[in-house]
Amino acid sequence: MEKSKSPTYWNYLKVKELLSLQDGIPGTEVSTDELNFIVIHQVYELWFKLVIKDIRDIIDLFYSESVDEEFIPLTVRKIKRMVTIFKLASQHFELMEQMSPQDFIAFRGKLGTASRFQSYQLRIIEFLMGLAPSEMIKLGDATPMTHFQRNASKLDNGEEILDKIQQAINSKSLLDVIEDWLFRTPIDGSKPFENEDKITVQGFVNEYILNFNLEQDKLSQLLQNMNTGSPDNIKIRFEESKKSISDYLNAKDADEKERSRRLRIRAAILFIESYQNLPLMAWPQKLIDQLVELEESFIIFRSRHARMVERMIGRRIGTGGSSGVDYLESTTKYRIFKDIWGIRTILLQEDAIPPLRDKNFYSFVSS
Amino acid sequence: MEKSKSPTYWNYLKVKELLSLQDGIPGTEVSTDELNFIVIHQVYELWFKLVIKDIRDIIDLFYSESVDEEFIPLTVRKIKRMVTIFKLASQHFELMEQMSPQDFIAFRGKLGTASRFQSYQLRIIEFLMGLAPSEMIKLGDATPMTHFQRNASKLDNGEEILDKIQQAINSKSLLDVIEDWLFRTPIDGSKPFENEDKITVQGFVNEYILNFNLEQDKLSQLLQNMNTGSPDNIKIRFEESKKSISDYLNAKDADEKERSRRLRIRAAILFIESYQNLPLMAWPQKLIDQLVELEESFIIFRSRHARMVERMIGRRIGTGGSSGVDYLESTTKYRIFKDIWGIRTILLQEDAIPPLRDKNFYSFVSS
Amino acid sequence: MEKSKSPTYWNYLKVKELLSLQDGIPGTEVSTDELNFIVIHQVYELWFKLVIKDIRDIIDLFYSESVDEEFIPLTVRKIKRMVTIFKLASQHFELMEQMSPQDFIAFRGKLGTASRFQSYQLRIIEFLMGLAPSEMIKLGDATPMTHFQRNASKLDNGEEILDKIQQAINSKSLLDVIEDWLFRTPIDGSKPFENEDKITVQGFVNEYILNFNLEQDKLSQLLQNMNTGSPDNIKIRFEESKKSISDYLNAKDADEKERSRRLRIRAAILFIESYQNLPLMAWPQKLIDQLVELEESFIIFRSRHARMVERMIGRRIGTGGSSGVDYLESTTKYRIFKDIWGIRTILLQEDAIPPLRDKNFYSFVSS
Amino acid sequence: MEKSKSPTYWNYLKVKELLSLQDGIPGTEVSTDELNFIVIHQVYELWFKLVIKDIRDIIDLFYSESVDEEFIPLTVRKIKRMVTIFKLASQHFELMEQMSPQDFIAFRGKLGTASRFQSYQLRIIEFLMGLAPSEMIKLGDATPMTHFQRNASKLDNGEEILDKIQQAINSKSLLDVIEDWLFRTPIDGSKPFENEDKITVQGFVNEYILNFNLEQDKLSQLLQNMNTGSPDNIKIRFEESKKSISDYLNAKDADEKERSRRLRIRAAILFIESYQNLPLMAWPQKLIDQLVELEESFIIFRSRHARMVERMIGRRIGTGGSSGVDYLESTTKYRIFKDIWGIRTILLQEDAIPPLRDKNFYSFVSS
Repeated sequence: MEKSKSPTYWNYLKVKELLSLQDGIPGTEVSTDELNFIVIHQVYELWFKLVIKDIRDIIDLFYSESVDEEFIPLTVRKIKRMVTIFKLASQHFELMEQMSPQDFIAFRGKLGTASRFQSYQLRIIEFLMGLAPSEMIKLGDATPMTHFQRNASKLDNGEEILDKIQQAINSKSLLDVIEDWLFRTPIDGSKPFENEDKITVQGFVNEYILNFNLEQDKLSQLLQNMNTGSPDNIKIRFEESKKSISDYLNAKDADEKERSRRLRIRAAILFIESYQNLPLMAWPQKLIDQLVELEESFIIFRSRHARMVERMIGRRIGTGGSSGVDYLESTTKYRIFKDIWGIRTILLQEDAIPPLRDKNFYSFVSS
Repeated sequence: MEKSKSPTYWNYLKVKELLSLQDGIPGTEVSTDELNFIVIHQVYELWFKLVIKDIRDIIDLFYSESVDEEFIPLTVRKIKRMVTIFKLASQHFELMEQMSPQDFIAFRGKLGTASRFQSYQLRIIEFLMGLAPSEMIKLGDATPMTHFQRNASKLDNGEEILDKIQQAINSKSLLDVIEDWLFRTPIDGSKPFENEDKITVQGFVNEYILNFNLEQDKLSQLLQNMNTGSPDNIKIRFEESKKSISDYLNAKDADEKERSRRLRIRAAILFIESYQNLPLMAWPQKLIDQLVELEESFIIFRSRHARMVERMIGRRIGTGGSSGVDYLESTTKYRIFKDIWGIRTILLQEDAIPPLRDKNFYSFVSS
Repeated sequence: MEKSKSPTYWNYLKVKELLSLQDGIPGTEVSTDELNFIVIHQVYELWFKLVIKDIRDIIDLFYSESVDEEFIPLTVRKIKRMVTIFKLASQHFELMEQMSPQDFIAFRGKLGTASRFQSYQLRIIEFLMGLAPSEMIKLGDATPMTHFQRNASKLDNGEEILDKIQQAINSKSLLDVIEDWLFRTPIDGSKPFENEDKITVQGFVNEYILNFNLEQDKLSQLLQNMNTGSPDNIKIRFEESKKSISDYLNAKDADEKERSRRLRIRAAILFIESYQNLPLMAWPQKLIDQLVELEESFIIFRSRHARMVERMIGRRIGTGGSSGVDYLESTTKYRIFKDIWGIRTILLQEDAIPPLRDKNFYSFVSS
Repeated sequence: MEKSKSPTYWNYLKVKELLSLQDGIPGTEVSTDELNFIVIHQVYELWFKLVIKDIRDIIDLFYSESVDEEFIPLTVRKIKRMVTIFKLASQHFELMEQMSPQDFIAFRGKLGTASRFQSYQLRIIEFLMGLAPSEMIKLGDATPMTHFQRNASKLDNGEEILDKIQQAINSKSLLDVIEDWLFRTPIDGSKPFENEDKITVQGFVNEYILNFNLEQDKLSQLLQNMNTGSPDNIKIRFEESKKSISDYLNAKDADEKERSRRLRIRAAILFIESYQNLPLMAWPQKLIDQLVELEESFIIFRSRHARMVERMIGRRIGTGGSSGVDYLESTTKYRIFKDIWGIRTILLQEDAIPPLRDKNFYSFVSS
């Protein structure tokens, strides 16, 4: 009888090959704690491969003149999968923590200068998500990128890895395609490059600012009545806040040639968040919210990572010694979807939002 | 300049080789959902490898005439690591659930008859923990073992896998070495094979049963007074319970030639649980509790697995269709550390426990 | 100066009153372990109150001739909140497990016959979700309901609690309103009570069965070719499967006067699952999937509960002693959304699904 | 028939009273989202009550000339329970996040200036753990304490709450009793106030520094050979590191009258960590590790809190607007068990640790 044509579990998953990759440094014995260390990092790399594929899928789906409506739910699910992975990845540090510091010290010497810093998949994830190389915080005098560049020549497949990273930097990012899509979002029924679009969008923005200011004035008055501070100080604070929001929505911080694009993107986020109850807005709002959860889960992953390292190698106040921990901690300041976070600071309660001109535009055919 | 002798992250972890093992069936394209499927199972296999190494370490540590006291905390930590893995493994099913049933159906056909059932590492874990092949529930007419045996000839490395499993079956198990260690535990200061040990142990058991019965009588009286049922029925129920506990502690259910060993093991668990506050008993009790948590986390892993499969392939009441789900569910009835679970049913509150003869025996030198 | 009109954190949350409710049995001291026990159960009751309010909200939203499209995303979010609570509630058992069995025994006597069984909010959740009193498994000779009825007279507020439960039983349930909504779902553009609706629906069902059978025939042939068993047995098995699915979709198991309603509900689920990529189907499918996750998380909560109790009070094989654990375990068999689970067993891959007649019916106005 | 004397579930747990405390501002309607908000905070307060009781228990157990050995395992379990609560409390923020920012805005106005900042139980936890009021970071011009003081007069039970907080500040803290216990730990068999104790302790410290320096020299040489930087710079860096560690272990940073106490505490931690495999050291080391996990879980809780608030109210780069988030984030810098974290930075691998003089001192009587 011939061998079965049906794949087996272990051939399909290449279990034998997989389980042969945990030998560490050739010619040395791998203790159970070192196996723990190796397994954990390999698991992370497997998960990261999946994250990268999902980001690339979304970039491909969105990289067109118009995004098919049915892609939005699919994209939401893909981002949800990325969130699930970052949550698992955060909990996974508990497995590392089953090693005591002493267990780790017992084999730490074998690792030499190898470091997680060298996980190029994690760098690719950052770039594909939309972190700019210029935003990366330096460790000593080197960003992660210059670190890779310096080391590439010393490594067997250094050039290959540098190439992969460079491709990720050059590629459209998740941030890029999401902002392109936001830029194209109909605002009050108007699409970009339509006649009058700029007027419509500016009208929406102005009206929103008006309503926002009314709310601020009410709040200012309330706080003055409640004697929570000097009335003048309260007034000044609220006037500053009103100006800051007007500047933000009008994209005063953007280069002049970028300004109208930036204004339209912010207006689109504000529009989607404000009218999320409309049938046509429900999925876009869900997408925006999923992106917030994605970035949140990434930040949590980073700070959980810092905690694990601190637990393993300790911290002495005033020595600046554990620069590794502090560096990891500093990267929790990165924000990729800045305007999605920014718009959240100026949302209004439902009855203060300007009413919509053409509600039917955002409905279902059959409703 | 020569290449650095220090290993790099990617060489040490064999990242390149690792990331080349997710191609599935040769000559077919792997979708992101199929990659999800492959990655998840590979992650499980990596974790399982670590579990197996920890179990083997413990078996080696315990496989001697006397276990060094300092091994107990180490063993506790190793079991804690296994628990951590089973908890992560349970949560990991959420990642599988990021695929919808339809996503799965899209590539299910490629898998043919391959099945998780064929994860030989999971079988090895079960056998090394102490599950007897005879206790395994059949799926159709075959236990997992007969299933492996039938398929071995059809597979490339079938014989090799069968050998590994057979070795695990023949090996001392975690249950074996734990019970050997329990058997050697000093009870009321007496060790097995010492003169009078049987008398001492039987004395402890008898006294415990006496105190237990007193507690039962009090409870019986209380329930009769509270009119929670017919007094005669309550009395009968409590008499049955008293007899059942006496039979259990005297190991009446064991073969005659096994009985004294079984009695001593149960008495040891009872002794450790009862006097857990003594310095010398604190780690042994912690070990017992950790074994309970291990088995609990394994059962939770099994039932979480059933839930994931049910979510993916559904369930129709009355068809017996989803035999896979029902099979997985049925394995949640396995219990490996039966007597540790058993003794938990007869613990007494502190003031009802017989006082200890020689407390100092279980203290520290320097106290 | 007058007291501030602004509420304070502690007045708003009634912190003082809240923290005065953990004294247990009047006149007795509450140990830290007993406080642990009380706090845990109070936390559950607070979460349950929120679950009940969310279910009632959904029932109210859906209790009308037609459900506004914008309610679907809101409902999905409400069910997601319930899922979040059941997941937290499952993890919460870990806090209970920080008590050892001995810690629990130390105050168990004070509880007398009080039992979690008496959490009427949990019963209300079950009934509001759609579990019928007749489906509830008996503990001894009593269902949870008869247990409540027997005890009502003995309790201070027994009648009041019985009333609340009875109201929940009499109320429309989540299952009821979801099935009403499914019944009204347009299938191939046709709505119930429209002319020809029965013909359209039956046509969809017949065509689906046809395609399903073709797939089964292919699979049957494949397995015969692969020699996985006797060809005759394989054929018989697949013929039985085909008949069973046809009977199921035609609701042969339903009473004759219920049959056409049941058929239409099942067809609607099948329709939504099959064409989930259509803009108008994306939210309904999400709702269905969220209900699956809800029921899954409830089952996981139940089995996690059984694990905690088993860990606390142990288990002796062959005594049938721990009837509490076995009872909890048996309730994991409950399924409320039976047809949603049922339809999952017969989904087809995308290219095998019959093409849709009128795709535009399920699109957006502005697309 | 008389009413049963056995408590019922709902009377024992005061379910009726408990479920009457979620009405928020008198005379206003509570939406489901507001109920969500109230329930979450009440759950936190219930958990915090339990944490406070466990800390107080430990302080009481340790507040004596000598701590009974059997209290160490109990203390470990109590701290483990606190860790479990902080982990649950971190996950619990996910329930808050089931509200969207808009859901929150809908009732935010009702809260006025009420703020979580006012959870006095959380402040009490911080003080009882050992955070000094002087270490607390200011929000604006006020520490949390001055904030409470300013508001006390305006509140109904302000004085009462201030008293509770002041008591916590005045009480011995967890840090205090742990450091007292560490101070009394036998080092190389010597106890404080014994003759020669200072010499013995200083001898241990000196020998440890010697071995540490040898390890540093080896590492320095290795890095010089590997050309990872200028040899001179590497040398300078390692000499600085050696000096810094010697200064730290000799407590040069402490006031002169505090120095010998501080030196002995650090030496004790180092001793316990280094010889953790000795039977008598296993529980003390476990206690130290559990304190690390406690502080870690508290930090994770704080940063998870910041994430939730950021998700709810957003963040605009460059405005300094979301000062709430930044404040929460800044509190993740607090470290209570500074020397336990500090000693972790200077642990040596097993074969580099100075051998112990009297191993038997740390063994069991019966071994």
